[in-house]
Amino acid sequence: MAKKVAEEENHAERLAKEQKAISVSQFFERNRHLLGFDNPIKALSTTIKELVDNSLDACQEINILPEIIIQIKKNPKEENRFVIIVEDNGPGIVKEQIPRVFAKLLYGSKFSKMKQSRGQQGIGVSASVLYGQLTTGKSSKITSRISPKRPAHFYELHIDISNNEPEIVQEKEIEWTNKDHGTKVEIELEGKYQRGKLSVDEYIKQTAISNPHANITYIPPDDKPIKYKRVTDVLPKEPLEIKPHPYGVEIGVMLRMLNQTKAKTLQQFFTSEFSRVSPNTAKEICDKANISVNVKPSTIIHTQADALFNAIKKVKIMAPPTNCLSPITEEILIKGLKKEIPAEFYTATTRPPTVYRGMPFQIECAFAYGGELPKEELAKIMRFANRVPLQYMQSACTITKGILSTAWKNYGISQSKGALPAAPLIITVHIASVWVPFTSESKEAIAHYPEITKEIKLALQECGRKLGIYIRRKRKDLEVERKKSYIIKYIPHVSGALQEILELSDKKEQEIQLLLKKQFESSKEAEDDNQKEN
Amino acid sequence: MAKKVAEEENHAERLAKEQKAISVSQFFERNRHLLGFDNPIKALSTTIKELVDNSLDACQEINILPEIIIQIKKNPKEENRFVIIVEDNGPGIVKEQIPRVFAKLLYGSKFSKMKQSRGQQGIGVSASVLYGQLTTGKSSKITSRISPKRPAHFYELHIDISNNEPEIVQEKEIEWTNKDHGTKVEIELEGKYQRGKLSVDEYIKQTAISNPHANITYIPPDDKPIKYKRVTDVLPKEPLEIKPHPYGVEIGVMLRMLNQTKAKTLQQFFTSEFSRVSPNTAKEICDKANISVNVKPSTIIHTQADALFNAIKKVKIMAPPTNCLSPITEEILIKGLKKEIPAEFYTATTRPPTVYRGMPFQIECAFAYGGELPKEELAKIMRFANRVPLQYMQSACTITKGILSTAWKNYGISQSKGALPAAPLIITVHIASVWVPFTSESKEAIAHYPEITKEIKLALQECGRKLGIYIRRKRKDLEVERKKSYIIKYIPHVSGALQEILELSDKKEQEIQLLLKKQFESSKEAEDDNQKEN
Repeated sequence: MAKKVAEEENHAERLAKEQKAISVSQFFERNRHLLGFDNPIKALSTTIKELVDNSLDACQEINILPEIIIQIKKNPKEENRFVIIVEDNGPGIVKEQIPRVFAKLLYGSKFSKMKQSRGQQGIGVSASVLYGQLTTGKSSKITSRISPKRPAHFYELHIDISNNEPEIVQEKEIEWTNKDHGTKVEIELEGKYQRGKLSVDEYIKQTAISNPHANITYIPPDDKPIKYKRVTDVLPKEPLEIKPHPYGVEIGVMLRMLNQTKAKTLQQFFTSEFSRVSPNTAKEICDKANISVNVKPSTIIHTQADALFNAIKKVKIMAPPTNCLSPITEEILIKGLKKEIPAEFYTATTRPPTVYRGMPFQIECAFAYGGELPKEELAKIMRFANRVPLQYMQSACTITKGILSTAWKNYGISQSKGALPAAPLIITVHIASVWVPFTSESKEAIAHYPEITKEIKLALQECGRKLGIYIRRKRKDLEVERKKSYIIKYIPHVSGALQEILELSDKKEQEIQLLLKKQFESSKEAEDDNQKEN
Repeated sequence: MAKKVAEEENHAERLAKEQKAISVSQFFERNRHLLGFDNPIKALSTTIKELVDNSLDACQEINILPEIIIQIKKNPKEENRFVIIVEDNGPGIVKEQIPRVFAKLLYGSKFSKMKQSRGQQGIGVSASVLYGQLTTGKSSKITSRISPKRPAHFYELHIDISNNEPEIVQEKEIEWTNKDHGTKVEIELEGKYQRGKLSVDEYIKQTAISNPHANITYIPPDDKPIKYKRVTDVLPKEPLEIKPHPYGVEIGVMLRMLNQTKAKTLQQFFTSEFSRVSPNTAKEICDKANISVNVKPSTIIHTQADALFNAIKKVKIMAPPTNCLSPITEEILIKGLKKEIPAEFYTATTRPPTVYRGMPFQIECAFAYGGELPKEELAKIMRFANRVPLQYMQSACTITKGILSTAWKNYGISQSKGALPAAPLIITVHIASVWVPFTSESKEAIAHYPEITKEIKLALQECGRKLGIYIRRKRKDLEVERKKSYIIKYIPHVSGALQEILELSDKKEQEIQLLLKKQFESSKEAEDDNQKEN
């Protein structure tokens, strides 16, 4: 027995020795597929996506028209090795921050802000640096300049994976002619370049559609540069940073906020830490919870917090501010589709902004129908989140879920059970949000929050109704046309029969035939006018 | 101009102030859907899954038959609040480690080990504690005892989210009668309980199928306990810890290993840090890379590491040891299916172990066909990873991909393009691995590694061929039966005709009829015997 007891203690103690902290770099080193590095094709495209997202965000930060150069260079010595170079005219990064921004995972400026931006986690670009390091052993090269009065800084960086901290391999000041400010990143990695549906080429083309204010130069491996010129000099509406909305805050988060706030009273806490809470609304919340507005927030105990939390639900609070979001807009969506897709009918909808878990978001939807689109295939989906095209994991995305569960037959489009609608149709859906809930860190699919799926369905229905009217009108026209061509076909027979019965001359018969046709044409015009008026 | 320059510097400096580190708790607080907490139904089931996985792993660590009690208690005062309690007879956790094991994300013993286990990241249970804290503000309660000679320790724990460190709310020694060693965890959380396809009930039932050596008592809310008694006292084969296999190691990882190894020579480095590398194999690698076996590993420079990396690919190295994995086995798989599913034909396959990225893994597959299974529906899929049932995200899983891309028509089963096979069929697939590559931290779907998908397809094909033979035999039997019943139907007509032609008596006609039938039966038996021999 004594021996058995000793054994048991040994077990727990043996296990205790093995229990230790794991760095976030170690975690993602092993779980690279969580970040979009499952295979060499995706690794290449994820890296370009992360770099371009960062460049576009950086230009947006300073309201400047983006000039972005993307280059993919083949390593001539080793197959499946590439150098990715992305250069922008953004604000640049101050010297001291460069190592951590590029070589420490979970480091950045966007996480703590509630503001619509492409990047949001502080993982993307350092994950690409990590992947390059893992697959080639090479460090990444960063050049950045924040002003023409300052020198450009050049860094070669490695990640110390066990500690998730940057390791500086080289650093120096360098000349950067013709560049007042901006950042250039070079990452060598194992990858695979291919053209087609899920390619880098397609990603860049879609990025140009959703960012019509950017000049993008793209140099594919062993090929001529492709230039996407901006079609507008108007910058998109600037997204604004906002505070959380009370409806989306959880009890645990509120307890933490109560503890950390600088506000001196409960009323001040609500008006200063949340959006859309006026002093009156704050008072109403406190009254409903039976707590004085003048209480010091940090003295609130658990049961009181519970009461406040339940009170919030009962008080009517304005929806979050709509000016924090920057939708693409119906006009630009239709313009973008018309430029790229040879259809016969276009329609778009920008839904009013709404909220999930305290996060404002806004859904837009656009259709291109008919024309030269393939008639016998399933509809094609184009998904965007904060203007970034989503290429992979279509079936896991709530946009797809919304499309699948829309009753397309209502709009005159056929659909098998559980399948996409079958029509010459391109469905574009854009979600703009201060925080897009992706299903994984690789940011390829949007999670199933009921509020989001509902808005997507409403947007699809709005466009669907407009499409339905068009399709029904078109079918009716075709039907009328068909009937009329049928009647016209029989006019000679009718006039022939009349000729026989009334014993008319051939000339007379020809006259009658002409008369019948004229009569028919005029009645048709009248009918058409009639239709137009409706 | 000067003003503009100053503005630019200000931009970069303003952004620099906003750049900061994000704790992994903050990251998962916002990205809870990555851990399986998208909605209240899933939150409840994820929490139970994480706790049960840990309990089964703990018992496996000390080779003990698991006794697990799972309870879901409704909070009588607040709708949608539940207390989850899971208790086991595992080795317990030493006092000092309890706070970090339960209240620090990315902390645990399983991450650094290459060993088949249910948990692997050191995230699961602390994520449940985090979720409970967020949605109810309550701390979690842990009781653990490592030996009858020691007291049990009780902790109430909170997570300090900004720093990802445990906060101890209460700690004390307590009496724990009738429990020599084990752990009990209580978490209060917002959730929703429902029965049906994706329910906790179903998860526990499937867990009992894949862990037939465990006693599980399950107490659902407001209902009687359900007892799953063990059907075998034989513990599953103990999985063993192994070293990485050279074929799966990347250049970046190898560089780090070369730097950190305790080995004094390159040869020793290869034999001690990797599995399946004998001194001879190590020498062969060094020779092919043109580097001496006696070089000190830490002096290896980048180009030499490249040479070693390329040399590994050219040297034939044994597959990783097979004894590190613990498959369910064909026999137990069929037993499990027979116990739960009323079919007419069962078959199973355990594939030989193989390797992806240096990680040994093994695929098993089992089919149940026909009988009382619904005839008009698509096949049902049951997925397991290291004996844990996977319930959500079926369409994102490579198991589903493998099933969809199998040519089921070859086995006599109909399948529409891009759809699951349509048949009275249950397809069970199990992956056992020292590291299962899930598509997200919620561990619901397996990522598309080509090596894994290939093995899944091979397993499906093996079972498919056996099923195909059964189905063809059955169809042939039915066809023969149909033909024979047709012949039997005409015997009276034949004998009647003979009676007429030969002018026989009724008695004689009856005799002939009987004779024909007998003759027919005997020929049928001969044919059947003949078939059996083939």
